[in-house]
Amino acid sequence: MSSPEEKDNLAPAVILVAPQLGENIGTAARAMANFGLTRLRLVRPRDGWPNEKARAAASGANHVIDTARIFETLADAVADLAFVYATTARAREVAKPVAGPHEAGARLRALARANSATGVIFGPERAGLNNDDLSHADEIVTFPVDPTFSSINIAQSVLLIGYEWRRSGLTAGDAGLPFTLDRELAPKADLFRLFDHLESSLDASGFFRPPEKRTHMVEGLRSILQRAELSEQEVRTLRGVIASLERRHVRTRSDS
Amino acid sequence: MSSPEEKDNLAPAVILVAPQLGENIGTAARAMANFGLTRLRLVRPRDGWPNEKARAAASGANHVIDTARIFETLADAVADLAFVYATTARAREVAKPVAGPHEAGARLRALARANSATGVIFGPERAGLNNDDLSHADEIVTFPVDPTFSSINIAQSVLLIGYEWRRSGLTAGDAGLPFTLDRELAPKADLFRLFDHLESSLDASGFFRPPEKRTHMVEGLRSILQRAELSEQEVRTLRGVIASLERRHVRTRSDS
Repeated sequence: MSSPEEKDNLAPAVILVAPQLGENIGTAARAMANFGLTRLRLVRPRDGWPNEKARAAASGANHVIDTARIFETLADAVADLAFVYATTARAREVAKPVAGPHEAGARLRALARANSATGVIFGPERAGLNNDDLSHADEIVTFPVDPTFSSINIAQSVLLIGYEWRRSGLTAGDAGLPFTLDRELAPKADLFRLFDHLESSLDASGFFRPPEKRTHMVEGLRSILQRAELSEQEVRTLRGVIASLERRHVRTRSDS
Repeated sequence: MSSPEEKDNLAPAVILVAPQLGENIGTAARAMANFGLTRLRLVRPRDGWPNEKARAAASGANHVIDTARIFETLADAVADLAFVYATTARAREVAKPVAGPHEAGARLRALARANSATGVIFGPERAGLNNDDLSHADEIVTFPVDPTFSSINIAQSVLLIGYEWRRSGLTAGDAGLPFTLDRELAPKADLFRLFDHLESSLDASGFFRPPEKRTHMVEGLRSILQRAELSEQEVRTLRGVIASLERRHVRTRSDS
C-alpha cells in the first residue's frame, strides 16, 4: 500500500502539453486525484491559467488545480525529472521503447522506489504530441485500445495511467517486476544541456548536411541518448567525450 | 489478441441503471468502444431514448448507441446473463465477494471462454446502486481509488472495466499495443567497431587520463552504448558523429 508520504514525493507528475479546453484539464485533475496523483504541470494552456472551467470540471480535486504549475516549454516542464513517458494514441515512427499502461505503472513505481522523479506527458486534444515533444521522453506509453475505435481522451488516458500507478503500489513486494533499476538517472535539464552541447559542436563541425535534414538528424541523436538512461555521472562523461574530441586536433598539434 | 468474433459474442454487456445525463451515456459508450465492448443496456434512462446528447458525446461510437437496448427493470436487463458484477465506489455492507477491476476482467474472460454471457452493472450519477440493485449481482467490483478522493464517474468506471476486459484477452507477451517496436538491432560486430572507433579517437585526444583509469572509463562508455540498443543505422550515425567532431578543428581552419 502506498503511504501518504510516498504519494507526495514520488508519484509521477502529469504534464499536459498545450491543452485546449479547461474542462479537459479539470477532468484530468479529477482522474489524477482518484489515484493519488497530485502534481499537475501545464505547458502553454490555450486559455491561460487559472481557468475557472478547469476548476469546475475537477469536481473537488482543488488540491491538484491549486498546485498546478505552468511552463512555457516542455523542456522546462520536465527539467527536474529523471524519467519521462510520452503517451501516444497511434503508431509513430519513433525509435523508442513502447509500453502499455500496466508495464508503465510498474516501471514508474520501480523508479520512485529508486528515488527518481518521473512524469507522464499527454498531448493536446486531437493532434496529440508531435515528434519534437516525443524527443523529450524516454519511452512511449500507449493504450491497448480497439484499433477500429481508438479515440481516447486526455482524462481517460490520465485515468488509466493513474490506475496502473496505484495498482503497482498495492502489490506486496517487488516480485514479478520485469526489470529492476537501482541507478539514479540524471535530471532532464542535464540531458538537455548534453543535447545542446552535442548539437552545437556538430553544427560547428558541419555534421548536419544537408541543412533540411537537421531536424530529423537531431531527433535521431536525442532518441539514442534518451534511450541510454544516463546517470548524472554518465552525462558528465559524455560531455567530456565531446569536449575531448573537439580539442583533439589542437592537442595533437600542440603535442607535436 | 481478442478476435472480432469473440468481441461480438462474449464480451460483457454494460448495464447502466437510471442514468441521468445523456452525456454520461455517450461517454460511457465511447469508453466501451475503445476496448471492444458493444452491448449497452439502459434501465429507465431519465431523459428517455434515443437521446441526442448521448449520441453527440459518444464521439463516433454510434454502433454502441444504435444497438443499445432499453429495459424497465434491472431484473429484465440481466435476465439472459449468467454472471453479473455490480460496481460500487465505496465499500458496502453487502455479503458478496468484492473484486478489483483486474480480477473482474480475468473472471469475465474465463466465463466468456466457458460460453457464459456476462454483464457489469453501473449505478446512476451521485447515488450509485442501491441495495436492491446489488441483490441482482453475483459479485461486487470496486476501484482501488484513493480513499480521500473517490469521485469516479460512470464513463471512467466503464473505461477501467473495459480496459481490464481487453487486457485479460491478450496472450502473455502481447501487451495488446496497437503497434510494436520492431527496430532491428545492430550486430554486435558493428557495435564493437564503434567501441574501437570511439576509444582510438579518445586515445588520440588524450581523454583517458590518468592512464590507469582507462579500463574503467572504457567500461563505462561501452555500458552506455550497450544500453542504448542501437540499430545499424544508429551505429553509422554515431561513427559519423565521432568523425565529424574529430574533423572539426581542421574544417574550421579551412573554412576561415
